[in-house]
Amino acid sequence: MKVVTLSAPATVANIVCGFDILGLALNEPCDKLVMRLIPEKTIRIINKDNYGLPVEPEKNVIGGALLAMLKAINENIGFEIESTKIIKPGSGIGSSAASAAGAVVGANHLLNNRFTKEELVAFAMCGEEIASGVKHADNIAPCIYGGVTLIRSNEPVDIIPLHAPPLFVTVIHPQIEIKTSEARKMLKKEVPLKDAVIQWANIAGLVAGFMKEDYELISRSLHDVIIEPVRSALIPAFAELKKQSMAAGALGGGISGSGPSVFMLSREENTACRVEKAMHDVYKKIGINFNTYVTMINTKGVTVVEN
Amino acid sequence: MKVVTLSAPATVANIVCGFDILGLALNEPCDKLVMRLIPEKTIRIINKDNYGLPVEPEKNVIGGALLAMLKAINENIGFEIESTKIIKPGSGIGSSAASAAGAVVGANHLLNNRFTKEELVAFAMCGEEIASGVKHADNIAPCIYGGVTLIRSNEPVDIIPLHAPPLFVTVIHPQIEIKTSEARKMLKKEVPLKDAVIQWANIAGLVAGFMKEDYELISRSLHDVIIEPVRSALIPAFAELKKQSMAAGALGGGISGSGPSVFMLSREENTACRVEKAMHDVYKKIGINFNTYVTMINTKGVTVVEN
Repeated sequence: MKVVTLSAPATVANIVCGFDILGLALNEPCDKLVMRLIPEKTIRIINKDNYGLPVEPEKNVIGGALLAMLKAINENIGFEIESTKIIKPGSGIGSSAASAAGAVVGANHLLNNRFTKEELVAFAMCGEEIASGVKHADNIAPCIYGGVTLIRSNEPVDIIPLHAPPLFVTVIHPQIEIKTSEARKMLKKEVPLKDAVIQWANIAGLVAGFMKEDYELISRSLHDVIIEPVRSALIPAFAELKKQSMAAGALGGGISGSGPSVFMLSREENTACRVEKAMHDVYKKIGINFNTYVTMINTKGVTVVEN
Repeated sequence: MKVVTLSAPATVANIVCGFDILGLALNEPCDKLVMRLIPEKTIRIINKDNYGLPVEPEKNVIGGALLAMLKAINENIGFEIESTKIIKPGSGIGSSAASAAGAVVGANHLLNNRFTKEELVAFAMCGEEIASGVKHADNIAPCIYGGVTLIRSNEPVDIIPLHAPPLFVTVIHPQIEIKTSEARKMLKKEVPLKDAVIQWANIAGLVAGFMKEDYELISRSLHDVIIEPVRSALIPAFAELKKQSMAAGALGGGISGSGPSVFMLSREENTACRVEKAMHDVYKKIGINFNTYVTMINTKGVTVVEN
């Protein structure tokens, strides 16, 4: 029986100003999936962790993604998946995307890579839809491609990998719950044109900054005048977290996806560690449990770790 | 007496999706300015064309730009400027910007380049304000820097030159009048967030397409869901012009600035010429006078042609 073991990384969607269109992959944390090709049209999900996620394929992001793929294949095959989630569901660093992206990359590997990466993104988005109610690719795409990705269009899927310089990422995960669907509902349906212009100027600056490896430009562009002013209210001490991170030398950062995790980018590892210390100091005072990570942008995306 | 002769190019602001933040310079047409440094705090404007533009410095874009510069200098010097406008005022390809940008680059040259390009942009914007009532840099910046420029911020001025591949530009100038201030008033003050997301995805795609020299990506990104649907009503046969230009092989294009000129980008010169022919065919039928140009992106900006 063909078996493959995969590592599927956490991801940061939006990257401050790029709401719904930008994302980046992290070296850590990563989920682990072990997948087997089976000779029946079945998806069998085995959870090897204690998160109690549903195992019915149509209620599970792995299942949703693989059902979409099996529909496109229409052969008498299926998959058994052992899922070990390391990325905590609801943390805002692409836990559901890692499951969906890992599953489709693994399935494609078992099928001798018959699908393109963009096709895999489209399948995985069907899994993501189960988690958040919306088909979005801003975690899926960086998880599959690695690095920093632009989702120019969701339908048809148009993913543009963006060159970026080495960047360290500090993440704090406050142990509170924010539902993506709730965070979406908070947003106004209309935005002032003048704010939209500021936002797209910063997005253009951020893309150019990544591609030119211009850290100063990246830093100047990491501003969000539309989403962050609304959603940051959900994250305790957000303003202080950001202020102290910047004082510690971060280039910038903000809410990871719809939160509650907050990330900060730094040019040097020791800066990223100082940012982690600054985050600790802010959060120790307010009495909410939290985890922090210092990691880097992951340039590979989902990887096969064992055949 | 120090004298300098300058060539100041036409420019295309917005570049379809990049309202107020993107612009590019054209090889043709160019205005000509002859400037002399004079030992008195005076700005003397001599029009060498028949457009009848005002010669009072505070009513003239050249004057407005140079007054801002003289204020920063605060010395007993001034400039005499002979202006020969080739870029027709009101054509939508940066006529006023060419005057203002040409004047500040010329003055800076006469003063042994004491100002940075960003400072020159800020001075020239004071001239642009006289023409349109708004301090905007989306024609000024490409006119001074050349190539494709991103205006990440107007205040403080933050100009990012963007690498771009060789591109041919076909321009049609219908001989009708559209006031920039009127074209601005048409726009809604609020835009749907979902449209803003589509727009910034395309802007990010366009920036990445330019920098990667990916013509297909440039083409896919040249869509404007916010400004063009409103302003295109001002331009006779706009939809047909675009349709036939695309059929002739253009990568894409749209309204130049606030119009009335319409531009199309092409990868090859012969395609750009076919696009010109297609534009001719559309406009010959509707009985409005027009001019067309086939030119390229100008990588130099304002140039000193004679010392």
